[in-house]
Amino acid sequence: MKIALLGHGVVGGGVSNIIDKHETKFTKQLEIVKILVKDASEATDDRMVFNIDDALIDDIDVVVECMGGLDIPFEYISKALKAKKHIVTSNKKVMATYYDELVSLAKENNVSIVFEASVGGGIPVMSNIRHTKKIDDIYDFQGIFNGTTNYILDKMFKEGDSFEDVLKEAQQLGYAEKDPSDDIDGHDVRYKCCLSGNMIWDTSLKLNDITTLGVRTVTQRDIYFGKRHQATLKLIGRGIKKGDSVQVLVQPEYINNYDTLAHVHTNLNCIELNSEYLGSASYIGQGAGKLATAHAVVQDIISLLTNEDVSLVNKSSVSIDNSEFMSNYYVRSKNLELFQDVIYKEIDSDVIITKPLNILKIKELVDKTDDSLMFVAGVSI
Amino acid sequence: MKIALLGHGVVGGGVSNIIDKHETKFTKQLEIVKILVKDASEATDDRMVFNIDDALIDDIDVVVECMGGLDIPFEYISKALKAKKHIVTSNKKVMATYYDELVSLAKENNVSIVFEASVGGGIPVMSNIRHTKKIDDIYDFQGIFNGTTNYILDKMFKEGDSFEDVLKEAQQLGYAEKDPSDDIDGHDVRYKCCLSGNMIWDTSLKLNDITTLGVRTVTQRDIYFGKRHQATLKLIGRGIKKGDSVQVLVQPEYINNYDTLAHVHTNLNCIELNSEYLGSASYIGQGAGKLATAHAVVQDIISLLTNEDVSLVNKSSVSIDNSEFMSNYYVRSKNLELFQDVIYKEIDSDVIITKPLNILKIKELVDKTDDSLMFVAGVSI
Repeated sequence: MKIALLGHGVVGGGVSNIIDKHETKFTKQLEIVKILVKDASEATDDRMVFNIDDALIDDIDVVVECMGGLDIPFEYISKALKAKKHIVTSNKKVMATYYDELVSLAKENNVSIVFEASVGGGIPVMSNIRHTKKIDDIYDFQGIFNGTTNYILDKMFKEGDSFEDVLKEAQQLGYAEKDPSDDIDGHDVRYKCCLSGNMIWDTSLKLNDITTLGVRTVTQRDIYFGKRHQATLKLIGRGIKKGDSVQVLVQPEYINNYDTLAHVHTNLNCIELNSEYLGSASYIGQGAGKLATAHAVVQDIISLLTNEDVSLVNKSSVSIDNSEFMSNYYVRSKNLELFQDVIYKEIDSDVIITKPLNILKIKELVDKTDDSLMFVAGVSI
Repeated sequence: MKIALLGHGVVGGGVSNIIDKHETKFTKQLEIVKILVKDASEATDDRMVFNIDDALIDDIDVVVECMGGLDIPFEYISKALKAKKHIVTSNKKVMATYYDELVSLAKENNVSIVFEASVGGGIPVMSNIRHTKKIDDIYDFQGIFNGTTNYILDKMFKEGDSFEDVLKEAQQLGYAEKDPSDDIDGHDVRYKCCLSGNMIWDTSLKLNDITTLGVRTVTQRDIYFGKRHQATLKLIGRGIKKGDSVQVLVQPEYINNYDTLAHVHTNLNCIELNSEYLGSASYIGQGAGKLATAHAVVQDIISLLTNEDVSLVNKSSVSIDNSEFMSNYYVRSKNLELFQDVIYKEIDSDVIITKPLNILKIKELVDKTDDSLMFVAGVSI
C-alpha cells in the first residue's frame, strides 16, 4: 500500500518512524512514497516534496494528513478525495468542522476517510466504537478527552500549584500550545465529542450546538471545594442519546472520588462507553504524544490495508438538543446578581451551588454575567 | 454464516439472544442453525439437538462452544476442528489447558479458533492485543482479571465485612460458584494470564509454570493494613517479557491508592498493556455477565465473518522463567519460623514484611509453612 504523508512534524515524524523502521507482517506491506513538507529547508529525505500535486501522484493509495490547522488541510484532503485516495487524518479540527462535507466527498469518490488518531490519540476509541456498534447500541459516552487540562487539574489537585504556574510548566513540557485556548476553553474536547457522537450515532453534529464550558478561570479555591467534598475536578465531555436527539456537552465537573474517572492522572485520557450488551467499557491511555498518536494513524492505515469496513454514515436527521440536560452547578463569581433565583445553597459570599439547572440556562447566565474571572462546574449534591 | 451453538446456559442463551433478536448489518448475516443441549428436558426450540454429531452437520461454518467444563468441551472442539469448522469459545479452562493441541489442530485443518470471551468477558482485550501487536511490541501486562474476587475485596474494603460473608453474598448474587476455588485460589486468573501471554508473545505457556497465590485466607486485618498505608488489596495477574523468556504470575498485591487500578470497583476487570509506541493502555469493563460475555462471543463470530486475520502462533521456544521476579511481601501467619531470615520489618507478632524476595522462594516458604490460615501479598515499601 503506497502512502503520501502530508506533514512531517511530531505526528508525521512518528508515522514515518513506525512504518520505515518497524518490521511486522503488516507494516512490511506499507510504503511511504511521498512526504509533503513546507519547503526545501525541511527536506531531509529524497521522498520529500513541497507541492500537494507532487504528493498526489497516481500510484498513491492512501494520503495521511498530519499537518494540523484548518483551511489548508481541508483543501488538501478534499483534493486527495477527489483524486480517489483514501484519507487517514489525525486532525480533529478539520474533521469536526467539515465532517459532513468530507464524509460525503469520500462517499462520492468511493474511498474511505478514517481518523482514529484525532480522538484520544493513543486510545483506540474509534475502532472500539466501530466494533461495539457492529452488534450493540451505545447509549452514552463520557470522559476525559484532553490531556493538557487533565495534567493541569491533576497537578493543581496534587501539588496545590496555581493554574498559571502549571499551565506554564505544561507549555514547557510541550503538553500545551503557546496559545492554549483550544485546550483550556474546551474547544479541543468539543471537536472530540463531535467526532465521537458522529461515530456512535451516525450523526453529523454541528460544533456550535455542543454547549461548552472551559477551565480557563479555575483556581485553587475551586479545586479545594472538591477536596472538601471527596470529589476531583475534571474537564468532562459527554454525549447521551435521548429518543431521536442527542445531548452533547463539555463542562468541568466535580467527580466523586469513588469513581475511577477521578483517579485518571497526569495527561492521560479516559473514555467510557455504555451500551446495551457490553455494559460499561472504559479505555484509558495517552491522549496525545508523538508515538501514541502515530500508532493510531498507522492502525488506521492497516484497517484500510486489511479491508476493514470503516464506512461512515452522516445522517443529519439526528441533531443535538441540550435543553433537557440538568445538573446542579458550582458558581464562583464576584457578581452573583443574576443567580439569585437559582441558589440552592450559599457556600461563601462569592460561591453558590445552584438548584438543578439546564446547561443552556447556566451558559446564558454565565455569558450575561460581567465577571471574566467567574468559574462554573457541574456538581452532584 | 451458519452457526452451531454448543450449550444454552447463561452465555449460550445470551449469544442466541443477540443473534436471533438484534438486527444490525452484521448480525443479520449470522444464523444459529443447531443448538446442542443435554437432553429433551432442555429443549425449547426446534434447532435443539442432543448429540454432538447432529450439531456438526455439513453446512455449519462456525461452532460456538459455551458449555464450560474441560474434558467434554475439549472432545467436542477437537471433533469440530477436524470437521473443518471454525471455533469460537468462551471457555478459558479448555483453551488454557489445551492451547498447544487446539491451536495446532486448528492450523492442520486450516480453520480458526478465537476466544475473546474467555479473558475479561466484556473487555475487548484479545482484539485490542491483536490490534496493538500488528505494529507494536507489548512489553508487559497487568490487571484485575477476576470479577468475583474483586467484588469480594472491594466490599471488604468498603464495608468492613468478613471474607466469608461477602463470599456468601457473591454466591447469592451469582458472581461466585458454589465451589469458589477457581476464583479465590487464583486459578481463573491463571487461565486468563496464560491466554493473554500466549496472545501477546506467541507462546504456548504451561499452566503449572504460572506461579499463583490466591486470596482464600484474606481477613479484615490484611485489608486494614493496606488502608493504613494508602493502598488497596487486589488480586493481580501480570506478565513481563524479559529477553527470550517471560515472567507470568498471579498474586494479591497492595496497590497504591494513587494508581487507577486501586479504584476499579465491584466486579469490574481492568487490564493494562504497555507497549513501545502506544505506551500504557488500559481497558476496564464487565469481566463476566451473560450479555457482556455473549457480546464478546458474537464479536468473535463477526471477526470470522469479516475475514479478520485471527491466526495464532504457538512457539514453544519462549517459556516462563519466574526466577527473577522480586517483590517485598506482607506475610501474616501464626508460624513465621521459616521467615526469620527474610524479615525486613516486623509489623506485629504474626505479621511481617519481607526483604525483596523472588516469588518462587515465597511460594516455597508458603508451601512449607504449616498454617492453613496464613496470608501473603506483594507490597511496595
